[in-house]
Amino acid sequence: MSLNQVSEQRCFAGRQVRFSHQSQVLNCEMQFSVFLPPQAEHQRVPALYWLSGLTCTDENFSAKAGAQRVAAELGMALVIPDTSPRGEGVADDPVGAYDFGLGAGFYVNATEAPYARHYQMYDYIVQELPVLLEAELPLTADRAISGHSMGGHGALVIGLRNSNRYRSISAFSPICHPSDCPWGIKALTGYLGADRTRWQQYDAALLLAAQGSKLPILVDQGLADQFYPLQLRTETLLAAAEQSQAPAEIRLQPGYDHSYYFIASFIEQHLRFHARHLGLSAA
Amino acid sequence: MSLNQVSEQRCFAGRQVRFSHQSQVLNCEMQFSVFLPPQAEHQRVPALYWLSGLTCTDENFSAKAGAQRVAAELGMALVIPDTSPRGEGVADDPVGAYDFGLGAGFYVNATEAPYARHYQMYDYIVQELPVLLEAELPLTADRAISGHSMGGHGALVIGLRNSNRYRSISAFSPICHPSDCPWGIKALTGYLGADRTRWQQYDAALLLAAQGSKLPILVDQGLADQFYPLQLRTETLLAAAEQSQAPAEIRLQPGYDHSYYFIASFIEQHLRFHARHLGLSAA
Repeated sequence: MSLNQVSEQRCFAGRQVRFSHQSQVLNCEMQFSVFLPPQAEHQRVPALYWLSGLTCTDENFSAKAGAQRVAAELGMALVIPDTSPRGEGVADDPVGAYDFGLGAGFYVNATEAPYARHYQMYDYIVQELPVLLEAELPLTADRAISGHSMGGHGALVIGLRNSNRYRSISAFSPICHPSDCPWGIKALTGYLGADRTRWQQYDAALLLAAQGSKLPILVDQGLADQFYPLQLRTETLLAAAEQSQAPAEIRLQPGYDHSYYFIASFIEQHLRFHARHLGLSAA
Repeated sequence: MSLNQVSEQRCFAGRQVRFSHQSQVLNCEMQFSVFLPPQAEHQRVPALYWLSGLTCTDENFSAKAGAQRVAAELGMALVIPDTSPRGEGVADDPVGAYDFGLGAGFYVNATEAPYARHYQMYDYIVQELPVLLEAELPLTADRAISGHSMGGHGALVIGLRNSNRYRSISAFSPICHPSDCPWGIKALTGYLGADRTRWQQYDAALLLAAQGSKLPILVDQGLADQFYPLQLRTETLLAAAEQSQAPAEIRLQPGYDHSYYFIASFIEQHLRFHARHLGLSAA
């Protein structure tokens, strides 16, 4: 077993488990969390991958979203990776800013020194984790993907580029157009260099406008979000969805902000959306 | 208005609000959180007081328990006080231990110097907060009380001693018999002095054995709790309930630990229990 169990806690008759492992792709030791619903005691279950936002680890969604209740009902696992490579040898933002480096991997494969050595979060999420988890845990290869803010960006980009590997995509408060917002420009410049043609593969609004989506998409955006619209650029995703006739429902929710109180309020609807596309009968 | 609003976040179509105020009873500035369900926009609603455990503030339950969903459905407010007086002038544990002083008020009225000046948490919860909140917020005088660990102790003691002020009592992993467990002996000695006869009024097992309960009680205790049974002494509450023929359901839950994953798993049942006794029709 290449997974080390760090902790396990009973939750809604299932198992909230934290693992560590040596990531080959990221070239460092990583931690992540998984919720295994009670159904996983006697059968394999599909998994929703949840990608968290800036400054988060695997613990924020685990503790604050209240997702385990519905996941336990539906028979859906939750896979909650960390948001960047970790460890003393991993290059951070030069001045330790919250929006680049540790806790801010942006789900890309970095090409620029010194970040390329560890910051390969795209391949970690798309390739390494599913292979590892489907070998070591009672998971089927049926996957859905969701996330928040930077992780909403990650979920949209990864889902749009890998429609054969996921059944459905959702996002809360995603960074829709990182090529043209402050967070995104900083991150993509740092990880990928100044050539903007290399940024397009990591820009959900550009990808959706160019190719549409084979997968159903659900997005929720709070209208009292302190980062809306400047950092999130939701209007670009709305325009791309309309232009490409994508099967996307993008909802603007009055009064809600960027916090986990917003996520908690709508996570049940996202889980039931994914469950329908994963073929879970209880949905 | 003697309440200052520190923050407000929309949550399940209701309002998660944090307030500060100058407590007369505690002689310091305090913060607390309130969840107001959507029904409170146009009518007064009953309130469940939640007392948190050692090291907590008003934020732990707010962020981690997932209680707002059911509270919003039922039309029940959640009142979430801090766990001790706060501020630079408030005496702490001499060596800063987590289980005494700041974050560890134990819901008693201290009589010993230097704690008596601020540590009057019993009166703060029973008297000051309800008067203040029912004047300033759309709350009825219908109250229920619950809590976790040290807060489970507080809820049981306060509910048992004030059956005219609450409709129902519940607790997760309560410290049932503080007169005879390490946490309790340290706290009661420090706040009340060495005379154990003064401790009895703050010992749920002793109170229940002596007087029974006019109020219905629901308790959940995880059997994988790292503090069970040494600190929690659940067996003393079970014996007292049986001896006094109290209307108490005390459930031992296999596999669950002392964490908020345990609370989240059963909080819906506690809210529906309180809602029935508060006369909320949707329960």
